[in-house]
Amino acid sequence: MGLSDEISPADAHGGSSPGKEQQAAGVGILLQIMMLVLSFVLGHVLRRHKFYYLPEASASLLIGLIVGGLANISNTETSIRSWFNFHEEFFFLFLLPPIIFQSGFSLSPKPFFSNFGAIVTFAIVGTFIASMVTGVLVYLGGLTFLMYRLPFVECLMFGALISATDPVTVLSIFQELGTDTNLYALVFGESVLNDAMAISLYRTMSLYRSHASSGENFFMVIVKFLETFVGSLSAGVGVGFTSALLFKYAGLDIDNLQNLECCLFVLFPYFSYMLAEGVGLSGIVSILFTGIVMKHYTFSNLSEKSQQFAQAFFHLLSSLAETFVFIYMGFDIAMEQHSWSHVGFIFFSILFIVVARAVNVFSCGYLVNLVRPAHRQIPAKHQKALWYSGLRGAMAFALALQSVHDLPEGHGQTIFTATTAIVVLTVLLIGGSTGTMLEALHVVGDSHDGHDGSLGESFEENNGYMAPSYDEELSSGNKIKMKLKEFHKSTASFTALDRNYLTPFFTSHNGDEEDEEEQDVPMPSSGRGGFRGRGRV
Amino acid sequence: MGLSDEISPADAHGGSSPGKEQQAAGVGILLQIMMLVLSFVLGHVLRRHKFYYLPEASASLLIGLIVGGLANISNTETSIRSWFNFHEEFFFLFLLPPIIFQSGFSLSPKPFFSNFGAIVTFAIVGTFIASMVTGVLVYLGGLTFLMYRLPFVECLMFGALISATDPVTVLSIFQELGTDTNLYALVFGESVLNDAMAISLYRTMSLYRSHASSGENFFMVIVKFLETFVGSLSAGVGVGFTSALLFKYAGLDIDNLQNLECCLFVLFPYFSYMLAEGVGLSGIVSILFTGIVMKHYTFSNLSEKSQQFAQAFFHLLSSLAETFVFIYMGFDIAMEQHSWSHVGFIFFSILFIVVARAVNVFSCGYLVNLVRPAHRQIPAKHQKALWYSGLRGAMAFALALQSVHDLPEGHGQTIFTATTAIVVLTVLLIGGSTGTMLEALHVVGDSHDGHDGSLGESFEENNGYMAPSYDEELSSGNKIKMKLKEFHKSTASFTALDRNYLTPFFTSHNGDEEDEEEQDVPMPSSGRGGFRGRGRV
Repeated sequence: MGLSDEISPADAHGGSSPGKEQQAAGVGILLQIMMLVLSFVLGHVLRRHKFYYLPEASASLLIGLIVGGLANISNTETSIRSWFNFHEEFFFLFLLPPIIFQSGFSLSPKPFFSNFGAIVTFAIVGTFIASMVTGVLVYLGGLTFLMYRLPFVECLMFGALISATDPVTVLSIFQELGTDTNLYALVFGESVLNDAMAISLYRTMSLYRSHASSGENFFMVIVKFLETFVGSLSAGVGVGFTSALLFKYAGLDIDNLQNLECCLFVLFPYFSYMLAEGVGLSGIVSILFTGIVMKHYTFSNLSEKSQQFAQAFFHLLSSLAETFVFIYMGFDIAMEQHSWSHVGFIFFSILFIVVARAVNVFSCGYLVNLVRPAHRQIPAKHQKALWYSGLRGAMAFALALQSVHDLPEGHGQTIFTATTAIVVLTVLLIGGSTGTMLEALHVVGDSHDGHDGSLGESFEENNGYMAPSYDEELSSGNKIKMKLKEFHKSTASFTALDRNYLTPFFTSHNGDEEDEEEQDVPMPSSGRGGFRGRGRV
Repeated sequence: MGLSDEISPADAHGGSSPGKEQQAAGVGILLQIMMLVLSFVLGHVLRRHKFYYLPEASASLLIGLIVGGLANISNTETSIRSWFNFHEEFFFLFLLPPIIFQSGFSLSPKPFFSNFGAIVTFAIVGTFIASMVTGVLVYLGGLTFLMYRLPFVECLMFGALISATDPVTVLSIFQELGTDTNLYALVFGESVLNDAMAISLYRTMSLYRSHASSGENFFMVIVKFLETFVGSLSAGVGVGFTSALLFKYAGLDIDNLQNLECCLFVLFPYFSYMLAEGVGLSGIVSILFTGIVMKHYTFSNLSEKSQQFAQAFFHLLSSLAETFVFIYMGFDIAMEQHSWSHVGFIFFSILFIVVARAVNVFSCGYLVNLVRPAHRQIPAKHQKALWYSGLRGAMAFALALQSVHDLPEGHGQTIFTATTAIVVLTVLLIGGSTGTMLEALHVVGDSHDGHDGSLGESFEENNGYMAPSYDEELSSGNKIKMKLKEFHKSTASFTALDRNYLTPFFTSHNGDEEDEEEQDVPMPSSGRGGFRGRGRV
């Protein structure tokens, strides 16, 4: 966060200078805390009055923009200003990990795993499609002089970074309004996994770009990407299982060791993230799966108080990080130099990402529906909701900021400005209209057809991982469908594996039905709605 | 933490460079997490086997020293190394606040306030005496060619920074062994307040030094210091009271707002710290008193679950920060360049600080005993224990590191090397021998004269803030004694004020006896011993 460059090295006679620097830091951080408090309070008031046109994230972004604008006008000292520059490293190393971990940690495993195939399709295949479509369209736009012309690889990098959708705003609205579990799981799973996919794609492209001369072909790039993805996933799952075994056998769940237990527990996720980053894998994929595994196995090996604490702790940390990210982004957008010379680029980019997301969602939706039984089809309105909920947030912004360093002068700037505009527009417009849109699509509340309903109800409906009528014959069948079905079956067998082997091995429980139920009690609190631990249920 | 200088600005074609930087950061942080985990585990094992010769803090320092030494030999990359340089700003802005806040937050108010006069005497008067004695002795040492010669103001700066004693190690041993409440309160209160005093003194001297030409006299410096101290105290208390009122009236203690409640609660201490720093006051004094006020008033306005959470949260944060500080310090000591040319300076400094602390403790002890009734005298063995427990830690180290920037080339280096040596020696030697020493002085355990006893017993004894036989006549009486008695009375009237006005005004309780008792239940857990919240009492 720009500490070291504020310390004047061996400043021989500047007696008051360190004090001044510290004072500037104090003012900077004070401002940030005040904005955080303001965001929380404003968000709370808006939620209380059911005013969905300005979700908390949008409010935070606006606060950042306004305060940043004021600071810009009022000629703030540079030493204070430097506390507000958005540092990608700070974002990637300190703000992102708690947010992503909380995503994994608060995941309701049943709806997630019962929609696992669809989520993976949307997140992996879909994001790949969206990136490519956006990249190709931007490249074609450049060729036809519609917009600023970028080399093809850079177009693909832009496509990758702009395909990262932000989960925060839409999900908080979904939670407020109450929606179908399956839709929620889809949007949630897609937006989380797609961040991981986008960052991996971006880095792979960036690597490809800088090593283009060494003659690697595109196929190798994809292999490299898969390697990274699978490696990170394994690292994350491995760390998660290690933690489960540690807490199972270390005997820390006795009365006066709770602090030690909690200290170790909160260090594991970060360990997973840094391990992956340290060996050149993707920390975000790793920490996501560590979160899932730690919640599923390690969590139940903790003492009851530590469980309550851990849940509240990660929830708190991610709330703070999320809110801070939007403020920080807003402030930086207001302060940063933008090259507004390419308004055409911005306009057409917005058009193209709307198209690309449509291609992503509807083609993947078609694919998924091919294999699903009739009663589990993803309805068109869910697909529309998914398409609409693709607003861009901090991940796109951070990658764009990184592209300023990665790409030649003008190119990075253009991408950065376009991304900034897209983030601000989508967060404010889509964020503000999601509530209305969801209501128009009749996918919220309890007042519509039987397929939907409140979280609790439809949760019961889909209680078994697999629908009971799984093997009934369907309208269309072909080879790809069989493949997908096999994948579907493998997730089913994973459930059996989990119940019979993994849970007994990694936890102190026996993996019987009672245990299953017990593990589900605290799950539904997957977002901002307060921590409902196991105490006093 | 040196983020910004690792980002190469507008690096036109360094495609793989940001990835490399991030990888280095990953490795650096990964190493730190591993050392943290190792420290916690090692500390736990040592405690479990009642091996008091290597307390957790010493173990952490050793781990840092060893790993730092290995990294030094093995020629680690500079990009990883930069993650381990001890940045004073990082220490003062991020590591110190949670530690100091936890000190205030975990304070048992009764023993603290019943010893308030003595604590203030030791911390304010005593630290001032110790600084002056050390400074004058070092100056005289320089004049007589015993040691490296420093200007008088720089000697006083050294005296101030080296008078900051570290609470962590000694207190954890006290807690393990169990000691007299009054002695514990004395050591605890002194070491916390004295940090605040030392840093204020250091900064005042530093300011005086750089403005010496403008002809301010020494009297003005003291006025300035008192101004800072009182201002910081007021700011801290003010923020604390504000938070109490906010939580009393905001109505956040309902079921689904716990996360919001916790978010706001954890932001207040940091707000207090940065507010004070931002307006040029002392953040550490401010956050300490915010901690005391928030525990006493705000805490009881929280919902029960948030209370449990807040207690565990700050305990966790301060444990992590404490342990990390020692590792970080050890690592930096092993990596940093030292000027070992002035071994005489180190040797005589150690001698002088031992003398200075003796002057501090025994003279202040005499002063305090003048005014106390016979049965509340501070026994000689308690004074000896207090004298012995003055080991130097992170505060001295951080200030010494800052003096490298504040002072001319050779001077700062000499002070830094001497401080480093003193920190390592005292942490390892005094930290390792405190247990033996305390046992030799018969101030631990339950097996000695009636004045001592387990925490609970003597807590009962001194249950009223004032001893009942307060107004009986004593052996010696004079003017200063009367003054001190008045001060004593004013703390007594504060207790009444608190019970009758402050508690009812700032909390949802009525301030009656029952309330008093309820508030004391969670207090005894003032350190590392796990969180014993109010749940399931």
